[in-house]
Amino acid sequence: MLSEFDLISRYFTRAPRSNLAQIALGVGDDCALLIPGAGKQLAISTDMLVEGRHFFPDADPFTLGHKCLAVNLSDLAAMGARPLAFTLALALPAVHEEWLAAFSGGLLALADEHQCELIGGDTTKGPLNICITVFGETAPGQALRRDAAQAGDDIWVSGTLGDARLALAVYRQELGAELSADLKLGSDSFKLAATRMHQPTPRVALGQALRGIAHAAIDISDGLAGDLGHILARSSVGATLAVDSLPAGAVLGRQNLAIRRHFTLAGGDDYELCFTAAADQRGAVLAAAQSAATAVTRIGSIDAQHGLRLRDAGNSTLDLQLASFDHFLST
Amino acid sequence: MLSEFDLISRYFTRAPRSNLAQIALGVGDDCALLIPGAGKQLAISTDMLVEGRHFFPDADPFTLGHKCLAVNLSDLAAMGARPLAFTLALALPAVHEEWLAAFSGGLLALADEHQCELIGGDTTKGPLNICITVFGETAPGQALRRDAAQAGDDIWVSGTLGDARLALAVYRQELGAELSADLKLGSDSFKLAATRMHQPTPRVALGQALRGIAHAAIDISDGLAGDLGHILARSSVGATLAVDSLPAGAVLGRQNLAIRRHFTLAGGDDYELCFTAAADQRGAVLAAAQSAATAVTRIGSIDAQHGLRLRDAGNSTLDLQLASFDHFLST
Repeated sequence: MLSEFDLISRYFTRAPRSNLAQIALGVGDDCALLIPGAGKQLAISTDMLVEGRHFFPDADPFTLGHKCLAVNLSDLAAMGARPLAFTLALALPAVHEEWLAAFSGGLLALADEHQCELIGGDTTKGPLNICITVFGETAPGQALRRDAAQAGDDIWVSGTLGDARLALAVYRQELGAELSADLKLGSDSFKLAATRMHQPTPRVALGQALRGIAHAAIDISDGLAGDLGHILARSSVGATLAVDSLPAGAVLGRQNLAIRRHFTLAGGDDYELCFTAAADQRGAVLAAAQSAATAVTRIGSIDAQHGLRLRDAGNSTLDLQLASFDHFLST
Repeated sequence: MLSEFDLISRYFTRAPRSNLAQIALGVGDDCALLIPGAGKQLAISTDMLVEGRHFFPDADPFTLGHKCLAVNLSDLAAMGARPLAFTLALALPAVHEEWLAAFSGGLLALADEHQCELIGGDTTKGPLNICITVFGETAPGQALRRDAAQAGDDIWVSGTLGDARLALAVYRQELGAELSADLKLGSDSFKLAATRMHQPTPRVALGQALRGIAHAAIDISDGLAGDLGHILARSSVGATLAVDSLPAGAVLGRQNLAIRRHFTLAGGDDYELCFTAAADQRGAVLAAAQSAATAVTRIGSIDAQHGLRLRDAGNSTLDLQLASFDHFLST
């Protein structure tokens, strides 16, 4: 059996890839040493993923490795920060080399894509738990904060929403006859939706492109309505959303109106960006989106009046009961 | 029942205490924002503590909160870094307010003692798991790295060793008649040793005082022999230790020679610093120790010849079979 240190050394230690001047010392000492660029701020976020809660016990280890880093990169994206590095803490019930090889493969492939270096970590025996802390760089005053939305701002969302939540509904057999006939476990439609759940795409390029253009931003991990709610609370504003113009995922778009509304508004695991920008910045937002090769959709506006108002396609008020995903309330 | 967000808000969010210029944005956004002082490096370390592995299921939550941060601060100390801030990721099987109040109390009391600000985190439902990532500041070239030991250096250790391991042996009933008669579960001697196990003191002031004086340093979490071994490996040197001059803890000092040798050399959970310094720096080391109000003991020397040699009080070679604590090998 591999010892803890052999294990770390074999799967997670490698020559630095990115040659970032900001990394003075990586894996292997009591601490890693980072040097942010002159005058730069360091953006820091941490996310913990637990078996049975954030992923299935039989989750594919390659996509799991991808997802664990992706959800952290998504937080950097929501701040407009450029990824630099991350630490990984890993509790494993036992050492399975095949699993570790695949997990580190998925993790490090995404890390390489974003030139984000693994600089430290910890491994221990315990129920499967993966905790990543990620570091990015941004210039002072340029971070996209939750408290910066202003009345009159447009509200935008990147990509599409709800396919991840739809895949979860199929796994859980929550919906039966309401679903389109092609959406069965193992079908092509299902696999398409499940990919959104298992391999989210952090909108890293878009977040950076929006610096100086967007006011507030957040990444959508717990559902649009709930996450937008954090912007509203911290900015002391309200919002009106055009529910039927929310961009549904490719598979969700073929479901009925009630399911579409519910899963675009209160899905979860989307890892798209929701952001606000002044109405006179529409051209700049679209240009930033194009430069980042990421679609964006205008979905509503920020109001001085507190609360979240939902409108349908005919501009009538909708009264939907929504519960954003909350880790302690949802079981 | 409290929701996840209420929980965070109630126990872990508070007005910043330290007014550190380095913290531009704390808890509550997608990322925290740190600004290291001009020309400073950021030292980063992460440690994950798992129930049943690093602490007992019925561990006192106040001392547990202390210990989780202490083991991370100990990594900063071993680098000679000044604590700035930390993130906390917490998986809890359920929300028990009494437990959370005590845990955050122990955690934040130690944080305040070191002016180390809680700047972000994550909470989720799952088997109890506590992952902290800590941030400190040091000047370029001043960090105490593992790879900087030089042949001819003295080897030093702070404080005393082995009482934490002795307490564990009592909990586990590993030793019976070999132990001194006063060392029973619940006795004053036992409580004294157990305090070393449950409430380690990170040698933060000593680490900083040793900058510019010590060459290499490491904190002793897995046992002196094993952790010194990391310095030897990374510095490509060997060492000779005077085993009978290792400073035993107050309770361990009253045990027989075999137990004293074993638990000072290969205990675990000591969180003392082991460091090396040139022989002409003995006065400077002692002055640094005095300024940090922390005892230090000279325990051996670094050799060009690889390997670890153990000598007894009569300078004869000892051949002890030692296994440093390793999370995957020890069960």
